[in-house]
Amino acid sequence: MSSDPAVVDPELYRVVFENDRVRVLEYRDKPGDRTHPHRHPDSVLYPLSSFRRRISADGRDVEVVLAPGQVRWLDAQEHAGENIGDTETHALFVELKEPSARRPDATLGPSAH
Amino acid sequence: MSSDPAVVDPELYRVVFENDRVRVLEYRDKPGDRTHPHRHPDSVLYPLSSFRRRISADGRDVEVVLAPGQVRWLDAQEHAGENIGDTETHALFVELKEPSARRPDATLGPSAH
Repeated sequence: MSSDPAVVDPELYRVVFENDRVRVLEYRDKPGDRTHPHRHPDSVLYPLSSFRRRISADGRDVEVVLAPGQVRWLDAQEHAGENIGDTETHALFVELKEPSARRPDATLGPSAH
Repeated sequence: MSSDPAVVDPELYRVVFENDRVRVLEYRDKPGDRTHPHRHPDSVLYPLSSFRRRISADGRDVEVVLAPGQVRWLDAQEHAGENIGDTETHALFVELKEPSARRPDATLGPSAH
């Protein structure tokens, strides 16, 4: 089964650009929407709206609250997400295709560095 | 002399995120504004506003018209830009720090692939 977010949740994730180095996804959902579990490579997350989400994986979860333009880094990871706010989510993911040289103990959800 | 856009035009380019893999720049200008010549590494360009610009390098120039959300790729290149439209430019650059394996004959200005 695919873990590509654009395959498992095509109504939420849309591929808006792709070449040999990057893929860019646009994400949109409504309050209460949940994603299926999916995998992100190392990615830049750019919120186009404010949002409030719960990100969960392996029995752990984190709450993520971001304002428009508050750029975050997403270590490569598998997780599921849920819009737990009362506004729509609109966000951009710039996925890096080259593998990371980073440690494998990824931070769950986005991080500030 | 630096060719870093955030150094040569700090009132136009602002570093909004940086780690070991990427740097993210926010660009804002007004009609008639020009940049100094500067160098971009391989980058994703995401227009947050519509804009109309002239990009020039080595006596050549191209006109670039983009709508909000019209994602483009920027091959690593040195150029200067000018806002030749009648609206402000607001755009995001996600710069890749790893060197490109691409051919060095970069496309001047953004490209669709």
